[in-house]
Amino acid sequence: MTKPIAINAFSMNTISHLSPGTWRHPRDEGRRYVDLDYWMEVARTLERGKIDVLFLADVLGVYDVYGGSPAAAIRGGVQFPLNDPLALIPAMASVTEHLGFAMTAAVSYEHPFPFARRMSTLDHLTKGRVGWNVVTGYLNSGAVNFGVSGQEAHDRRYDIAEEYLEVCYKLWERSWEDDARSADAAGDVVADPARVHPIAHRGEFFQVPGIHLSEPSPQRTPVIYQAGASARGVRFAAAHGEGVFVAAQTKAALARQVRGLREALAAAGRPTDSAKVLNQQTVIVAETDAEAHRLFEEYLLYASTEGALTLLSGWTGIDFAELGMESTFEDQEGNAIQSVIQAFSSADPGRSWSIREIAEHVRIGGDGPVLVGSPTTVADQLESWVDETDVDGFNLAAAVVPEAWTQIVDLLVPELQKRGRHKVDYEPGTLREKLGGGARVAPWHPAARVRI
Amino acid sequence: MTKPIAINAFSMNTISHLSPGTWRHPRDEGRRYVDLDYWMEVARTLERGKIDVLFLADVLGVYDVYGGSPAAAIRGGVQFPLNDPLALIPAMASVTEHLGFAMTAAVSYEHPFPFARRMSTLDHLTKGRVGWNVVTGYLNSGAVNFGVSGQEAHDRRYDIAEEYLEVCYKLWERSWEDDARSADAAGDVVADPARVHPIAHRGEFFQVPGIHLSEPSPQRTPVIYQAGASARGVRFAAAHGEGVFVAAQTKAALARQVRGLREALAAAGRPTDSAKVLNQQTVIVAETDAEAHRLFEEYLLYASTEGALTLLSGWTGIDFAELGMESTFEDQEGNAIQSVIQAFSSADPGRSWSIREIAEHVRIGGDGPVLVGSPTTVADQLESWVDETDVDGFNLAAAVVPEAWTQIVDLLVPELQKRGRHKVDYEPGTLREKLGGGARVAPWHPAARVRI
Repeated sequence: MTKPIAINAFSMNTISHLSPGTWRHPRDEGRRYVDLDYWMEVARTLERGKIDVLFLADVLGVYDVYGGSPAAAIRGGVQFPLNDPLALIPAMASVTEHLGFAMTAAVSYEHPFPFARRMSTLDHLTKGRVGWNVVTGYLNSGAVNFGVSGQEAHDRRYDIAEEYLEVCYKLWERSWEDDARSADAAGDVVADPARVHPIAHRGEFFQVPGIHLSEPSPQRTPVIYQAGASARGVRFAAAHGEGVFVAAQTKAALARQVRGLREALAAAGRPTDSAKVLNQQTVIVAETDAEAHRLFEEYLLYASTEGALTLLSGWTGIDFAELGMESTFEDQEGNAIQSVIQAFSSADPGRSWSIREIAEHVRIGGDGPVLVGSPTTVADQLESWVDETDVDGFNLAAAVVPEAWTQIVDLLVPELQKRGRHKVDYEPGTLREKLGGGARVAPWHPAARVRI
Repeated sequence: MTKPIAINAFSMNTISHLSPGTWRHPRDEGRRYVDLDYWMEVARTLERGKIDVLFLADVLGVYDVYGGSPAAAIRGGVQFPLNDPLALIPAMASVTEHLGFAMTAAVSYEHPFPFARRMSTLDHLTKGRVGWNVVTGYLNSGAVNFGVSGQEAHDRRYDIAEEYLEVCYKLWERSWEDDARSADAAGDVVADPARVHPIAHRGEFFQVPGIHLSEPSPQRTPVIYQAGASARGVRFAAAHGEGVFVAAQTKAALARQVRGLREALAAAGRPTDSAKVLNQQTVIVAETDAEAHRLFEEYLLYASTEGALTLLSGWTGIDFAELGMESTFEDQEGNAIQSVIQAFSSADPGRSWSIREIAEHVRIGGDGPVLVGSPTTVADQLESWVDETDVDGFNLAAAVVPEAWTQIVDLLVPELQKRGRHKVDYEPGTLREKLGGGARVAPWHPAARVRI
């Protein structure tokens, strides 16, 4: 069995993404995140390695649960400062031809009418290489700045997200007929008004009567990604997701999640392989195992335990500053804390992990596993993850940038190509087509169903 | 007197901006607006001509007043389709070093918290070359898509805009102290939490307690442009505007507007030259007067009278389809219509203009004047406009793109340089510095007053 392995690069418009503190490594260039040249170099490197997609995470808030303040995030540069991901994409698109770009955007932060135009614009300018990671928002420190006291209840957020997507789909798929546009200069018209339709959306949360201001872009609907882990989130992903992001620490946990998602896809009437499931995974690759482990030890010198606790607190809503560093999860009261600690210590569930050990585990690679070794070793591991869990591929995160990207592209990719696990060239067409889909969203997709 | 003449290029992320129909001209490439290469070429051309700023207009709606439907706008490509301006800027910035970029964004369409981050991100990525044209929104066809039935009353919109700007200024100028960031790798911290402050904004329209997620960008506050013509708009511009856009058809009207703005600046306690006033002006330049007039006649073959009526209807809220094409303004009842027609026919106010004649006048260059001639002729005219009206310069709009930009850069600019009216090289520094301002907003600016 040689199922190809999908490979994304996973990053963020910030100094340090999932390995807090490593920005202090002498070779780390994360501080250049404000520099277009830096991102254009990254994009060129990734395209050289035939990476599918550069996926840019985003949150519109600061990690302020740890210690009840944003101080640790500010001090440690824990996904902070954090700039808008959208603006990076056009410049990176201008120096690449095939690399896809997925960006996170929460439905709670902008009205769907202008947002749909932003995405159409990006899809035009990238010639159809854009994906959207649909997020319902999860940092309270972001929500409060919108004048929202606390966030909408979790399930309610999904209801809003469903309608938000419906509005976007109508704008992208329903407003303009395929032959509305007739831009030949010989012709006298830009578009046929009889073929451009007001979407007349009247819903619970949004009223959008008008037409889409953007003409159809190459993909119309960008490739839809989702990262929901709750039951409602899995249902949402099973309905809309063409790619699903997960972050499982162990093969057992990943196999369980993939199985759950495939079942949810089937329940939603979709082919079980119609969503690519990608696990977050940090890789540290060098010529030899010994050299890779030496690098890992070197990175650890700069990785920040406090930064890890800051991330853990933000992700879980539990202030880890209030837990004893040497305590184990058996010491903690409350199911919430126990399940959190179990999740983050699942790499070796038989062992009794202290808070410190968990933080030291998380400080490189965050909530995903870390693979360290020669190209052969890491390729072996990635293959076994795919073959044993049915996952489709990986969101590869970086411990130190940009050297993680060159490690992946110059060492890991050739090894995977040799094994027939990674493409030697991109497929033609849009991002959706490169990922194996059609020119338009599949018939089972909710975006297809809004078409007239 | 050889006051330098400020020159912006005035465009829009659409097929055709202010000369509807000319997209059908065989040499017009406006249809390439979805192509990054097109915009990168435009940016390179403008920088070659030491143009100050590429100003990208925007509206979040369609011109649907004419005939009570968007049909004419859709058919004629009248500022339609219309993509998001923001996404063009990073790619254009990547191939230029000095050209400024100003984009229109309405305060009614996005919450100030994410918007401020978007602008900070652009200011970082352009290394301080971004301006923001603050608009309060004026197309009802846009507003209704936000679920707003009609727009907020005009003055109320300015109240919201004032508070929106206050929130942005606090995020840009107050949240981070100058020395908060200490990004040397030798240092162990990204930023000093004691020097990054929550803005704690509690206002009538917005509650924004948090910190700015972006570290200070080169300009912090982008250069603020405004285009208000009403009494309230002039007050707003006099408070916030570092550049003010106007569109006067005659020198007399322009002199009056400039004088009014200078008086308003004085009344606001600002130096009367502390805002650059720029008049919208379309130029058609060729080697000789005869050739320029031949070009103008050629452009007119493609210009659309219906497109002009569509723009006029959108700008005024009056459906010009209901007025007799041969009627003059003396025939029309109601002061609103009379004042509109007077404004657009002011190029020759002694004459009795019919609706048709006004539309034929507007179809090239929209609501601004058109100058046609050799470099000497057009430079003479621009000089006389500046010297007789006290205007600081021009937003030069294009009838046919990109040849308007090459006409300006290759013919007009050298002539103005010869006369000492146009710089032979850019000033160093940020856009604000290039325009004659300091490293930070001036002390009189409201953004300066929110600093701690």
